[in-house]
Amino acid sequence: MVPLAGAGLALVNTGLGRARSAAHSMVAALCVMAVAALVYAIVGFAWQGIAGHPGHALVVAGKAWGWIAAEPFFLRGLRLGLSPTALVILLQVFGVGLAGLVPLSSGADRWRLGAICASTVLLAGFTYPLFAHWVWGGGWLAQLGANCGLGRGFVDGGGSSTIQVVGGLTALSMTWILGPRRGKFSAEGMPAALPGHNAVLVLLGCMLAWMGWMALNSAGAMLFAGAETGRVPLIAVNTTLCAAASAVAAAVVTRVRFERPDASLTANGWVAGLVASSAAAAFLKPAAAMIVGGVAGILVVTAADFLEFQLAIDDPGGAVSVHALGGLWGVLAVASLADAGPHGQWLAQLVGIATLLGCVLPLTYTLNWGLDRMYRQRVEREGEAQGMDLFELGAGAYPEFDIRGDEFLQK
Amino acid sequence: MVPLAGAGLALVNTGLGRARSAAHSMVAALCVMAVAALVYAIVGFAWQGIAGHPGHALVVAGKAWGWIAAEPFFLRGLRLGLSPTALVILLQVFGVGLAGLVPLSSGADRWRLGAICASTVLLAGFTYPLFAHWVWGGGWLAQLGANCGLGRGFVDGGGSSTIQVVGGLTALSMTWILGPRRGKFSAEGMPAALPGHNAVLVLLGCMLAWMGWMALNSAGAMLFAGAETGRVPLIAVNTTLCAAASAVAAAVVTRVRFERPDASLTANGWVAGLVASSAAAAFLKPAAAMIVGGVAGILVVTAADFLEFQLAIDDPGGAVSVHALGGLWGVLAVASLADAGPHGQWLAQLVGIATLLGCVLPLTYTLNWGLDRMYRQRVEREGEAQGMDLFELGAGAYPEFDIRGDEFLQK
Amino acid sequence: MVPLAGAGLALVNTGLGRARSAAHSMVAALCVMAVAALVYAIVGFAWQGIAGHPGHALVVAGKAWGWIAAEPFFLRGLRLGLSPTALVILLQVFGVGLAGLVPLSSGADRWRLGAICASTVLLAGFTYPLFAHWVWGGGWLAQLGANCGLGRGFVDGGGSSTIQVVGGLTALSMTWILGPRRGKFSAEGMPAALPGHNAVLVLLGCMLAWMGWMALNSAGAMLFAGAETGRVPLIAVNTTLCAAASAVAAAVVTRVRFERPDASLTANGWVAGLVASSAAAAFLKPAAAMIVGGVAGILVVTAADFLEFQLAIDDPGGAVSVHALGGLWGVLAVASLADAGPHGQWLAQLVGIATLLGCVLPLTYTLNWGLDRMYRQRVEREGEAQGMDLFELGAGAYPEFDIRGDEFLQK
Repeated sequence: MVPLAGAGLALVNTGLGRARSAAHSMVAALCVMAVAALVYAIVGFAWQGIAGHPGHALVVAGKAWGWIAAEPFFLRGLRLGLSPTALVILLQVFGVGLAGLVPLSSGADRWRLGAICASTVLLAGFTYPLFAHWVWGGGWLAQLGANCGLGRGFVDGGGSSTIQVVGGLTALSMTWILGPRRGKFSAEGMPAALPGHNAVLVLLGCMLAWMGWMALNSAGAMLFAGAETGRVPLIAVNTTLCAAASAVAAAVVTRVRFERPDASLTANGWVAGLVASSAAAAFLKPAAAMIVGGVAGILVVTAADFLEFQLAIDDPGGAVSVHALGGLWGVLAVASLADAGPHGQWLAQLVGIATLLGCVLPLTYTLNWGLDRMYRQRVEREGEAQGMDLFELGAGAYPEFDIRGDEFLQK
Repeated sequence: MVPLAGAGLALVNTGLGRARSAAHSMVAALCVMAVAALVYAIVGFAWQGIAGHPGHALVVAGKAWGWIAAEPFFLRGLRLGLSPTALVILLQVFGVGLAGLVPLSSGADRWRLGAICASTVLLAGFTYPLFAHWVWGGGWLAQLGANCGLGRGFVDGGGSSTIQVVGGLTALSMTWILGPRRGKFSAEGMPAALPGHNAVLVLLGCMLAWMGWMALNSAGAMLFAGAETGRVPLIAVNTTLCAAASAVAAAVVTRVRFERPDASLTANGWVAGLVASSAAAAFLKPAAAMIVGGVAGILVVTAADFLEFQLAIDDPGGAVSVHALGGLWGVLAVASLADAGPHGQWLAQLVGIATLLGCVLPLTYTLNWGLDRMYRQRVEREGEAQGMDLFELGAGAYPEFDIRGDEFLQK
Repeated sequence: MVPLAGAGLALVNTGLGRARSAAHSMVAALCVMAVAALVYAIVGFAWQGIAGHPGHALVVAGKAWGWIAAEPFFLRGLRLGLSPTALVILLQVFGVGLAGLVPLSSGADRWRLGAICASTVLLAGFTYPLFAHWVWGGGWLAQLGANCGLGRGFVDGGGSSTIQVVGGLTALSMTWILGPRRGKFSAEGMPAALPGHNAVLVLLGCMLAWMGWMALNSAGAMLFAGAETGRVPLIAVNTTLCAAASAVAAAVVTRVRFERPDASLTANGWVAGLVASSAAAAFLKPAAAMIVGGVAGILVVTAADFLEFQLAIDDPGGAVSVHALGGLWGVLAVASLADAGPHGQWLAQLVGIATLLGCVLPLTYTLNWGLDRMYRQRVEREGEAQGMDLFELGAGAYPEFDIRGDEFLQK
């Protein structure tokens, strides 16, 4: 079921983009999931590993801190069965693709397909497994509990940090590296609204993602946070309530601010609720899950505006606010609201957030900046005007339909 | 998997509606599922309850008849695990959303988003849990067997009555309260054909709904009708055969009547087959499931015509014929064809049907009529002309496509 | 989950076809799945049967060779429970629909709905169950191991042969019987490109099919190839890696040949990878699954060209190259790469392939040719010009959108 989350995100991204780049957006999504799965199977898993398996550790202050795993490449020699190892690999082959889909949305309408694949290699082959080792592979963030007495160490059941924030910070890096779409900002820096081309796809994507997320949160909580099988109904209920509260909050906030509820932001609210639910869904009471969702919905609408108007960031699908901020809030929610949090859990979660902002963000920015030096990531000017479909794939997504040019934006 | 049924119904509704209301239809579907889940978690479940748990009962003729449950609000204090309680909550959080989606289809192109949410609050917070308590929560309809010796009491495994008929009767109420779309009926009362805007979405919705329904019927039969796990393959096969027979019957009937098979009615036949299968899927032989489906398919085509031409009801998506009539037929099928029906089962099912028509229909009509007094449910005249998307959301679903105005209907 | 594969194939077929036949394509897909399920339940399963159950056998060289089963019609008297019998029926009710969807894609834009249903009756009622009995029902191909010492006999876990090749060879027959679409080949025999009308649907279909295939391969391997439950994660990982490698290979090959990666062929590559993975997914190492996929991706692009330019076959959705060739390659892969292949397995697989080409292809061609004599399968000339939607269903799929006529092809 987890790949439904990927299909859902792909639809959300495509629906929020332009019609002239719709085929490109879907092909890129399929390629990202394909490349991510292949690269992760070849090298990524070797570096992420499994908690309790041997790996490389640094000894600091008399204690061993795991920083990278040492499993065989190509999934060789692994005993595949209903073992935790096999289930982790299965879940991660999907999860790493999900992380790779997040930046797609930020680079919509201007990110070249070849560069997307190359960037996914970096993410699935290095950035993702490295951080996931720290959190899920028995690495140093997970050891904060045993080594320093900080609660249970950094806890993230379903990947609010490993999948969503890592993907979201890569998305943020890409908005900086690619720059805004032509026509997004006027000479005075005022942003123009570039509406998505198909709201039905966006909302269908939300519904498919919901199903994927319930599976992701359930599987993740059992494999990585020690939740027993009996918590699955609670996890699914909490995931649903968190997304529902977030979507309703986003609808209400946009209704109040713009007089009308906004379809895209309501959808983004729904996804942000899913994102925020991942870390803590197994440990929250249903009422707390509603609160986490409500805050996520308010956050995503506010942040989307702030990014666009204050920071002049052009993020067509809202990946930074939905996945990076929604995920960070989800990580915090573990400490603040979950009923499983012993003393010190707050600090452990904050150390994790500091690591994401202070270590993962520079890493993913540097890797993608370096890639851009060697292999230009942004499409040529004419490609952007023509649309990614015609320029990069040689055919439009909807050849029999009349598609309007940019003149509809003047309305 | 059950939410796929919701995604499927949302697509069917949207595809059968107009292009200028497509985003509104999908946003409304997401909001209905969100609001229904939240309200059900807050108060609905408290009133539906679980069979065997304490609740309020009336003593009539020396016997206690349960009429409403008394669980805590906010799902508080519930032991969530793989207990029946947790699984019922999980299934119902999805099921109540499904019931809420049914009337959406009847109110297409004229029902305001705010009113949709308010109406969903009434449905998920009161009407649905009340009737579901009577059937699934150990209430008086379920007690007909023990108290009066009527078979096993009223039996509905997968929600033909609780979800589909309750939703369908609310849909019927909404067609009365909202009135027909402008242009639907000429001055002489002749209905015009207002075709759906995207047949691909409608049929994709049918396929997604299929999967959701197999999960719904399986889970419901185990939780509410005492079916053992081993019946799951039979339930899935019967659900499939019932839908298949119903779609084929609808295609054949429309082929005979109109010379051409009708895509929308074939799709409606498919969904009606799913609806009719819910109550009895666990107890039918495969050949009987085909008969139940065939009858449902004939019924839905005939009823759709009758409602439109004789009763002048404008039900864009056919919710009344598909969900209300399909569901009632499914409830009857338990008594007539299921191999589990002991003596008296017929009477129990008829008491259930009488309750739906004589009690649930007036209740849901009154609640929505009262809501309409306080908070007008139908959109302004100009909103209907402009389309719900632009008027209520401020943006169309397909801004880059050329959409024809009403002139295409003259053809 | 398996029906998601059907929904996925339906979307791929529809997206690769013309806008004026989109509703027809989706309705036909639903009807194929419905008719196939009904016919299979009525007579098909009786002839396919279960390994170990009594059936009809021919005695040749002193050994009994099963050629057809003898189960009751209408699934009568079968003990439905969590028995292998019930699970086989459940899986096959979906699988036979999947096989029926394959030829749809080859007959796009010219195959009449009535003839499609009649052809599906032949497939689901005779061709499919006959061959499936030989492979999965304990028939003579499965007995090659015990009777002749050829490895384990013909092995196909997930249906590369029974579902995909049988469907693909029927698709090939239909391209011959129906002939090419008007305008596909110029007077000089040069093929014109007739692009699909909606690339987003095609790629969404790929993603949904992925999920269905993981379920199909897992269930098939356990029921038909003796794989233990513990292999499910391996099967899902291998299915994913095989599809991923195939899609990437197809994208790279089209990039090299046409300077641009081709969206449709990348999608076809993905599906071909799924198809090729079915037979052997339970027995491959992950690295081998990548190789199987990579070869499938190269094969499908090369074959699509060869069929169109050399053999003048008009196969709009590429069903012959994707399903027939991809499936044959999957069958071979069992012998060449799987770690479970003892001596003689090669020969067993080759006997199976020879049977498909020398026996199933003539059978399915003859049946459909005979059907065409009695009941013309191709639509009238005017129907093709007008579009299948208007001509056969009386309404277009997208009545509110402006659809271009054939003039867009001149560009």
